[in-house]
Amino acid sequence: MKILGIDPGSTRIGYGIIETSPGRAGRDLSLIDYGVIEIKRKESKNLVAEAAAALSKLLKKHLPDLVGIEKLYFAKNVKTGIEVAQTRGALILQANNASVPVLELSPSEVKLAVAGYGLADKKSVAKMVGKILKLESLRGHDDASDALAIAITAFYKDKINQRLK
Amino acid sequence: MKILGIDPGSTRIGYGIIETSPGRAGRDLSLIDYGVIEIKRKESKNLVAEAAAALSKLLKKHLPDLVGIEKLYFAKNVKTGIEVAQTRGALILQANNASVPVLELSPSEVKLAVAGYGLADKKSVAKMVGKILKLESLRGHDDASDALAIAITAFYKDKINQRLK
Repeated sequence: MKILGIDPGSTRIGYGIIETSPGRAGRDLSLIDYGVIEIKRKESKNLVAEAAAALSKLLKKHLPDLVGIEKLYFAKNVKTGIEVAQTRGALILQANNASVPVLELSPSEVKLAVAGYGLADKKSVAKMVGKILKLESLRGHDDASDALAIAITAFYKDKINQRLK
Repeated sequence: MKILGIDPGSTRIGYGIIETSPGRAGRDLSLIDYGVIEIKRKESKNLVAEAAAALSKLLKKHLPDLVGIEKLYFAKNVKTGIEVAQTRGALILQANNASVPVLELSPSEVKLAVAGYGLADKKSVAKMVGKILKLESLRGHDDASDALAIAITAFYKDKINQRLK
């Protein structure tokens, strides 16, 4: 099973793709890819369309079975918050259109699942992501390790949902 | 030329479709259809996907040449604002995916174009929409007459853009 985690932003979108190891009842998770999609505001006329196109590429390349995306509750900056929300809406729709199920996760849900504490800081989350995926270190930006944390949480939540059914 | 105007909301989306009369240099505008898409929050698991599906139906039924959608700058209620922005993003993407050009218009731009005054109230806007489209009266909700105002403004703006090219 492949899971794509997305940390949405208006011009920076973190993504992380993980995979469950076959034959171990999905207990082992391993890293496939992670990174940050950067959209240059000046060159882009349509942030929403560019974000959706970038996600479309990721979906086609990795064919995930599940997409996890972080929920947005509030924003310090209203203009940016509106932009992030628009991009989020477009990303959810893009995954829907590709028939990939989407799980929406709250930031505290992700922190709790990965670091065991709903108010954990980014550093602790990144450290635990490294441990879970058995990596020496996670290079790169916070947005990418956050996206991996979202993918891990989506996997856990999906497993619980499946059991509840 | 057919123009679809959209007044985005989280659970109420106003729409209005107008047409330019052929042979009169696009000076005459007439009404094709208007209304409000209502999404029942309790029955809907995914507001974004439902809104996009409803737009998709309108696009297929009317095949507009242009979509006008109102910009969102701020929201009194943050939670609703985020939802409206997400829906907006999904609607823009849906129109993009259908290869229909999208014009984003600010609320004051619409009021100025239709009622001649950037701070015009909803009643004045509805009245002028009726005059422009040569209708006796506009029944129904404000969201629908706003959507027609957005369609009219998109038509004017597109004409100016074409001339500037």
